[in-house]
Amino acid sequence: MKKGRLEAFTDAILAIILTIMILEFKTPESFQFSAIYSQIPYLISYAIGYLFIGVAWYNHHYMFAKTRWISRRVYWANNMWLFTTSFVPVATAWVGRGLNEQGPEIFYFIVFASWTAAYFFLSYQLVKANEKDHQPKAAAAIRSMVIYRYIANWKLDLLQGIVTVVALVYVPALQMVIVVLMIVFIGARFNKDSDHLID
Amino acid sequence: MKKGRLEAFTDAILAIILTIMILEFKTPESFQFSAIYSQIPYLISYAIGYLFIGVAWYNHHYMFAKTRWISRRVYWANNMWLFTTSFVPVATAWVGRGLNEQGPEIFYFIVFASWTAAYFFLSYQLVKANEKDHQPKAAAAIRSMVIYRYIANWKLDLLQGIVTVVALVYVPALQMVIVVLMIVFIGARFNKDSDHLID
Amino acid sequence: MKKGRLEAFTDAILAIILTIMILEFKTPESFQFSAIYSQIPYLISYAIGYLFIGVAWYNHHYMFAKTRWISRRVYWANNMWLFTTSFVPVATAWVGRGLNEQGPEIFYFIVFASWTAAYFFLSYQLVKANEKDHQPKAAAAIRSMVIYRYIANWKLDLLQGIVTVVALVYVPALQMVIVVLMIVFIGARFNKDSDHLID
Amino acid sequence: MKKGRLEAFTDAILAIILTIMILEFKTPESFQFSAIYSQIPYLISYAIGYLFIGVAWYNHHYMFAKTRWISRRVYWANNMWLFTTSFVPVATAWVGRGLNEQGPEIFYFIVFASWTAAYFFLSYQLVKANEKDHQPKAAAAIRSMVIYRYIANWKLDLLQGIVTVVALVYVPALQMVIVVLMIVFIGARFNKDSDHLID
Repeated sequence: MKKGRLEAFTDAILAIILTIMILEFKTPESFQFSAIYSQIPYLISYAIGYLFIGVAWYNHHYMFAKTRWISRRVYWANNMWLFTTSFVPVATAWVGRGLNEQGPEIFYFIVFASWTAAYFFLSYQLVKANEKDHQPKAAAAIRSMVIYRYIANWKLDLLQGIVTVVALVYVPALQMVIVVLMIVFIGARFNKDSDHLID
Repeated sequence: MKKGRLEAFTDAILAIILTIMILEFKTPESFQFSAIYSQIPYLISYAIGYLFIGVAWYNHHYMFAKTRWISRRVYWANNMWLFTTSFVPVATAWVGRGLNEQGPEIFYFIVFASWTAAYFFLSYQLVKANEKDHQPKAAAAIRSMVIYRYIANWKLDLLQGIVTVVALVYVPALQMVIVVLMIVFIGARFNKDSDHLID
Repeated sequence: MKKGRLEAFTDAILAIILTIMILEFKTPESFQFSAIYSQIPYLISYAIGYLFIGVAWYNHHYMFAKTRWISRRVYWANNMWLFTTSFVPVATAWVGRGLNEQGPEIFYFIVFASWTAAYFFLSYQLVKANEKDHQPKAAAAIRSMVIYRYIANWKLDLLQGIVTVVALVYVPALQMVIVVLMIVFIGARFNKDSDHLID
Repeated sequence: MKKGRLEAFTDAILAIILTIMILEFKTPESFQFSAIYSQIPYLISYAIGYLFIGVAWYNHHYMFAKTRWISRRVYWANNMWLFTTSFVPVATAWVGRGLNEQGPEIFYFIVFASWTAAYFFLSYQLVKANEKDHQPKAAAAIRSMVIYRYIANWKLDLLQGIVTVVALVYVPALQMVIVVLMIVFIGARFNKDSDHLID
């Protein structure tokens, strides 16, 4: 498959997912400035969603830049991943109306867990496609990404899952803190060559 | 016509069609997690729509990758096809509110049938444009696609039409099963070289 | 200015303008198939809007393919043109609720006239930019486009304006017929080399 | 980072931000032409927002055309800038319902000020990235942009801030005039080579 066209298609979808989140930021009926305060919970939720997609795009961009050959399997793994990503605005909207409510936070957790699984599946398919294409360096670069090693570490996943479930029972809003911590951890450390990919 | 610009334009439209479907996934007013259950029918409908566009994109991408020359006739066939595709979110939304209701399912059927006709017309114009451009290999590759042979087989179309009409009368939801079966059948088998198109 | 990036930006905006028109096609609350009949006026209006943008894109694509050099003046003429184009969905939505109502049809006329003026201004700036860039062939190609000669013919514009105003007074819906006739006239005849632009 | 992919991603986001503003232009329930007059305040607000994004895109395009190398830091500065830009449609919508109301105008001012800060931060990171990449000419070109020198001039910023605050207290609508003046000032004067960037 033509990599360039798939990247462009993916980027268009991610750009729309990112931008429709602002549609949920409702302007008040009133003209009092204070009327906007009611949107602060959504502002927080939106900022987290933005950070999330930002880190996701960066990692996606790196994996694809390393890859020369896109198989049909990778195409469908990418679609599955985009499908889970498309629920981020939904979860963001619901959580943004009740940051410390259990229902929205459980939904966010399910979306986040599905997203993580889909992302890992996509990475794994890219690793395999690169190996099949005799590009061991690209495969190794993807394997060495922080996000890949993080998700592949099932003890860490289990720990994060347990901590999140406990948080959901007692202080649902804590889940957003866990998500932010994970995003910052993954986003802040990166393969050194990521800065030196040139068109 | 410049192929690259038309591909990019088409991709942008498909990406928007794909992504606006999530706007119909409404977050509940309530904060009960169970309130989200009411969205399960739409979730199913959305997943099918996603699969649909995913298979469509893959086939479109392949046909265009094979083609060197875009005539005005192909441009308008492509527009007509995009026009029918733009009704997929509408049909998906209505069916998603009543998976087993006759009205929405008939509408879905009309959209699906129009889409199929438009897709075939586009393929046929691409075949002809390639023949005119002395690219018999590209024309043959498009003719040999599963989706092309499927639609070109009028006995199969007639059979599918009859089965769907019967389903619409007795168990409308069955239509979605037929659509999924067809999508999987077309999506799962593909020209071997589709995996080896490089930018 | 980099032509490629401006083309891509323009295409993204046109793709969104094209696609948000489907958002106005509302699915019925009811599950009766006949409930969708109420959307037929909008369907007609939407089809015309689609045709409109389709012809516009084709002409825009041709003009830009011929042009090597984008000045800041062209950039702003392009923006102004996109601004007027962004009102097409609005006019389409209003007319789609009352095909033979005077208010919506007058609004459509104003949008259409502004669009025509903005399109001509853009073409004219492209002609001048090409002349300044010592590309007389490109300038001549743009000047010889049917749409350019149509709009540049002030007698024709005046005639169309008068006929439309008379139509608006007596049978507002006739305006849509005039628009369709003009689009088909412009869309059907084209510079011969438009089919032979290669990436 | 691959510059081309980031530019395309940014353009898609800006195109969506630009275009969703038209969604707020509501068509009247009535069929009286005069019913559209109620949208005139929003029309003004929308035109200003459009001008704003148009100038922003032009400046962004120039800075990136000059830059060869995109660091992770620039990526995140770009994201932060896009995040602030995504609030332009929100501020535009609220101001468009009350052009001379204090609440919306204060909100617009906050969005505008955040946007300005984010834009400057992005420019500054691009200057630094270019210096690190031994591209002193590119760094100097960015530093010499009118928008860069305008924002970097803290006396001017302070003056504009004070005048705006006074306006907000007495005649809130004046703020829009100040914004337009600034946009026109920045948009009208530009580095000469901006017209001569070729793909």
